Amino acid sequence: MCQLLGMSCNTPTDIGFSFAGFRQRGGATDHHEDGFGIAFFEKSDSGDIGLRQFHDNQPSYLSPVADLVNHYPIRAMNVIAHIRKATTGEKNNLANVHPFVREVWGEQWAFAHNGQMTDSFIRRTHRLHTNGNAEHYTPVGTTDSELAFCYLLNRLKSAFKTRPSDETLFTFLTAQCRYLSANGLFNCLISNGRWQLAYAGSLLFYLIRQAPFGEAYLSDGEMSVDFKDVTTSKDKVAVIVTIPLTSNEHWQQIAVDECLVFKDGAIVFRDTPSKKTYMTIEEGIALARSVGASV
Amino acid sequence: MCQLLGMSCNTPTDIGFSFAGFRQRGGATDHHEDGFGIAFFEKSDSGDIGLRQFHDNQPSYLSPVADLVNHYPIRAMNVIAHIRKATTGEKNNLANVHPFVREVWGEQWAFAHNGQMTDSFIRRTHRLHTNGNAEHYTPVGTTDSELAFCYLLNRLKSAFKTRPSDETLFTFLTAQCRYLSANGLFNCLISNGRWQLAYAGSLLFYLIRQAPFGEAYLSDGEMSVDFKDVTTSKDKVAVIVTIPLTSNEHWQQIAVDECLVFKDGAIVFRDTPSKKTYMTIEEGIALARSVGASV
Repeated sequence: MCQLLGMSCNTPTDIGFSFAGFRQRGGATDHHEDGFGIAFFEKSDSGDIGLRQFHDNQPSYLSPVADLVNHYPIRAMNVIAHIRKATTGEKNNLANVHPFVREVWGEQWAFAHNGQMTDSFIRRTHRLHTNGNAEHYTPVGTTDSELAFCYLLNRLKSAFKTRPSDETLFTFLTAQCRYLSANGLFNCLISNGRWQLAYAGSLLFYLIRQAPFGEAYLSDGEMSVDFKDVTTSKDKVAVIVTIPLTSNEHWQQIAVDECLVFKDGAIVFRDTPSKKTYMTIEEGIALARSVGASV
Repeated sequence: MCQLLGMSCNTPTDIGFSFAGFRQRGGATDHHEDGFGIAFFEKSDSGDIGLRQFHDNQPSYLSPVADLVNHYPIRAMNVIAHIRKATTGEKNNLANVHPFVREVWGEQWAFAHNGQMTDSFIRRTHRLHTNGNAEHYTPVGTTDSELAFCYLLNRLKSAFKTRPSDETLFTFLTAQCRYLSANGLFNCLISNGRWQLAYAGSLLFYLIRQAPFGEAYLSDGEMSVDFKDVTTSKDKVAVIVTIPLTSNEHWQQIAVDECLVFKDGAIVFRDTPSKKTYMTIEEGIALARSVGASV
């Protein structure tokens, strides 16, 4: 279900332009109108990472909370946003609005999911909780997405009492995402504010904007920006999204079951299946529909 | 440090009036200008509790996020708000802005603190984390407040693998708050969205508004409301605050080291020390200053 938007930068950056297009898909140019959420990881003067979140159960294209997000420029190092079309889990329930957040080893981790876990995964994972075998994290709402997130974090915290090296961590997370992708339709973004992981179970695209910057035109509205006017030559901004946001830029597609990790606007980890496959947007939408999710 | 505002209701209620006064203390009528946070627990159609939070590092009296909170009426069952005057922990760091939130047994728990933990408590509790003896929750920011919250939750989760009865829970939480109060200046509000606990280490007041409703005048601004116009005869709203918000209502003071739990706007649990003492507002402010906190 739903669509994902992520951003990773090497300097605090306002996601306003991308979000202005993305939010239109929450009720105006598309039907993801059962609420939205956005998580901003911001850097303090001393380099600490703080998180703030905005959630609303109104459609993002007209939500006053989304208006605030657009008009109050928040400069963040990492952002995860999600617009929701409810398939599993009650509509109009804030506990079901992504991104979901949990503290892991003294870090805030945000997670958003697009897809649908299988009934059998949902039953088995609920049983783990009932039997007391998933002791660290428990879902608050009723979505399959939060259940998958808690599953992943319970595995992680059981495997590592303290934070392992980035390489070990990203390899472990890729393996968990592969498992989840084998048990449902699973596209996700995960960030701890310092890095952002993107896993494509079906559809996910990215681009990295850097010098020389040019103009970009939104696909979902009459809006363009010339990034030359708002950047310095050192800026690097990666944007990750379910379906490309601009009509004149070259978006890279993430292969099915490929895992990328972005840090400071660059790719720092990549795990690609030996046989690369790519879905067309039409195939991705059809697959989502066939499993009761939506794109 | 800082000031607290809480609300517990038997029907979804807009905290706008109280918040309109409270936010003035964040830079206009008082000096708590190092950011603010507010957590709303809202009920979905099926009775599920969802949480949304707003945090900003701008002073609450002029913050655009606080403007949104005031103009976008959010009707909640429980609310916890906090305005911050930084004493411990970096200013301008979102990771240090209350309320702090953690998931406990599949519930979101929000916590806000006014006071200052002792250096010895801070050292000992950091040592627990370093030695791996505080495995469930770890602070993200650098405040003594979040450290105290994590201490309390680690004790709770070690003592109870699953949620105990309310009576057992409230008794346990009172004992933990007493311990924290013996190791610092400790006023706090804690809520899981269904109940709200208020513990007074020095200053905390409450009132319960119910029929017959009357008019109320804010102490911090030229604003009044006639609650008759905006309520039904069944409504019950408890408001808890560091220093009374209105000038013409009778606020009850919570005794030093007294613990109250509110549910649906009523007191459902009370643990009062055998010898009741009350501080004057002047004494409370003087005590806060003497330990390096602020009220």
